[in-house]
Amino acid sequence: MKPATLKQIAEQLNISISTVSKALKDYPDVSKKTKDLVNELAKDLNYKPNAFALNLRNKESKTIGLIIPEIVHHFFSSVIKGIISQAEEKGYLVIILQSNESYELEKKQIELLMNQRVDGILISLANGTADYAHLNEVLAQDKPLVMFDKIAKLVRCSKIVIDDRKAAYLATQHLIDTGCKRIAHFRGPLLPQNSIDRFLGYKKALEDNNIPYDPSLVYLCECGEHSFEEGKANAQKLLQDHNDVDGIFINTDLVAIGAINEFKKMGIKIPEDISIVGFSNWHMSSVISPSLTTIDQPGFLMGKNAFKQLHLEITNLKNNLPIVHQEIILQTDLLKRESTKDITAKKNKLHL
Amino acid sequence: MKPATLKQIAEQLNISISTVSKALKDYPDVSKKTKDLVNELAKDLNYKPNAFALNLRNKESKTIGLIIPEIVHHFFSSVIKGIISQAEEKGYLVIILQSNESYELEKKQIELLMNQRVDGILISLANGTADYAHLNEVLAQDKPLVMFDKIAKLVRCSKIVIDDRKAAYLATQHLIDTGCKRIAHFRGPLLPQNSIDRFLGYKKALEDNNIPYDPSLVYLCECGEHSFEEGKANAQKLLQDHNDVDGIFINTDLVAIGAINEFKKMGIKIPEDISIVGFSNWHMSSVISPSLTTIDQPGFLMGKNAFKQLHLEITNLKNNLPIVHQEIILQTDLLKRESTKDITAKKNKLHL
Repeated sequence: MKPATLKQIAEQLNISISTVSKALKDYPDVSKKTKDLVNELAKDLNYKPNAFALNLRNKESKTIGLIIPEIVHHFFSSVIKGIISQAEEKGYLVIILQSNESYELEKKQIELLMNQRVDGILISLANGTADYAHLNEVLAQDKPLVMFDKIAKLVRCSKIVIDDRKAAYLATQHLIDTGCKRIAHFRGPLLPQNSIDRFLGYKKALEDNNIPYDPSLVYLCECGEHSFEEGKANAQKLLQDHNDVDGIFINTDLVAIGAINEFKKMGIKIPEDISIVGFSNWHMSSVISPSLTTIDQPGFLMGKNAFKQLHLEITNLKNNLPIVHQEIILQTDLLKRESTKDITAKKNKLHL
Repeated sequence: MKPATLKQIAEQLNISISTVSKALKDYPDVSKKTKDLVNELAKDLNYKPNAFALNLRNKESKTIGLIIPEIVHHFFSSVIKGIISQAEEKGYLVIILQSNESYELEKKQIELLMNQRVDGILISLANGTADYAHLNEVLAQDKPLVMFDKIAKLVRCSKIVIDDRKAAYLATQHLIDTGCKRIAHFRGPLLPQNSIDRFLGYKKALEDNNIPYDPSLVYLCECGEHSFEEGKANAQKLLQDHNDVDGIFINTDLVAIGAINEFKKMGIKIPEDISIVGFSNWHMSSVISPSLTTIDQPGFLMGKNAFKQLHLEITNLKNNLPIVHQEIILQTDLLKRESTKDITAKKNKLHL
């Protein structure tokens, strides 16, 4: 049965459409008897108020837009899950678009979401995005926008991030603490802030420990869908270029797992010959052999926080309250596993 | 700058709102001069037609709803990617909801999407769904609905599936062909059709090869977020219960990888002692050691096909054309890798 219209109800009861409408909204100038008749028939006829019409009146769509570089990625799918869980709690629906790391597509998608009149936008930037006019345009139109993970420092909006520099410092320091002296870095692409910050954290840790920085030890990765293969290729290149590397800090777990795979094939022992620290704590990292020491990147929590901040801004805007942009930095931890040396165990042995 | 309204344009040009509206829509009864003035000012003032108002008029929302049991899952995120890629091509936005395998949540989400007046709904059922009234209600309201992967045979709508029974038969037959005589099955949960069909395919292959079916060789899995641990636990149980099993067909790759991990720890050689075939072709399956023989489940293609069918039905409905429900069965392949014996290699050796 198709949902009934106000007109059908009015015709069947032989009253005006506006009386039906008022009755359904419980207006005081309609009698209780009419209200009861209207409500009963509306239920029988499966009448549903039109969400578009309602939203048009309320100037709310109760939908938000989410632009994400890549869905088939453990970290981002965890973020999506966090966003959806919170949105559902607050009665919002989430429209999800994938930029495929393309600036052009991202720009188009922002326009699509603006035309759709979403109440706000959540975005993690494409690797290709270096111009921010499309984002500033959203803000100029007073539409709440919250960035997470891959952000642009120059855009003035709320941001949910981790301290990538600090986390990378922690990872590199752990390699140094466990005896590594010649440490390589497989870094992410050139543009996104998080891959720059991880590189800077690596560099700073070397400096603070008086280990000279050697640019020939830094290898680039796209970190896209061929991450595993990139890890393998970089592992090969590294062995060709250098025979003295004893530790690597790697931008993302999947690249690290590719590298471990290649090293194992070539007879390199991990962590004895080369120690490895990854980044993200993908669920496979704990189950491969050797299990991967890595930085835990809290995707689900990041998604939850991103939605919460956006919702706060949407609500403030509706109530004519000022919007205060927040930069929320989430906690990250180093998870010590088998791919780095366990010096506490060694120390204990020496003490026996 | 906030987007301008028709009223602002009308006031600035000192003409009526309806003239502005007509000018923007290129009506013949407005002069070219007025049209040019209106269009120029609309551009300057960043006027955008209200998508809600437009959609209300067209009775289209240009959005579709997607309900999926779990986002953080390689197969389902591939499906989402396929759906979004097609939807974008046709100018549709996709609202994504996650049922967490819960029937109650799924029912609520169907209602949410209906209230939002999406143009159609794509769904892969929750494991807990055994009652289909909420889905029949969607169809009764003439709203296009397409099911994929986890479907209900009893609901009369289009379905995009693979032939799970045939694929499972293929997997089991491969174990038999490579010399396995006592074959276990780690099956999925009891309810969803695809896990029933895979079990039936396994059983039929045994029968056709005169291998007696032994229910004690069938182990249940939830196949949710603890799949890896379930694979480990089932591997342990299997070794306690039986000492003669030489092959296992496992419902999903992640469970299979957990089992392989556990067998390796216990000194069981794969494929020499026990051969294993998985299901889904998760990208890690090709890179673990030994690499996993598995059934390739085409997620991206399934997503593309699901959207295409839904779009066809939406378009037919709009044009008052009849809707013909389709059951599209996608091709699956067995990918032979290291976790099953390579008998062609053996044969070749004998021939030398």
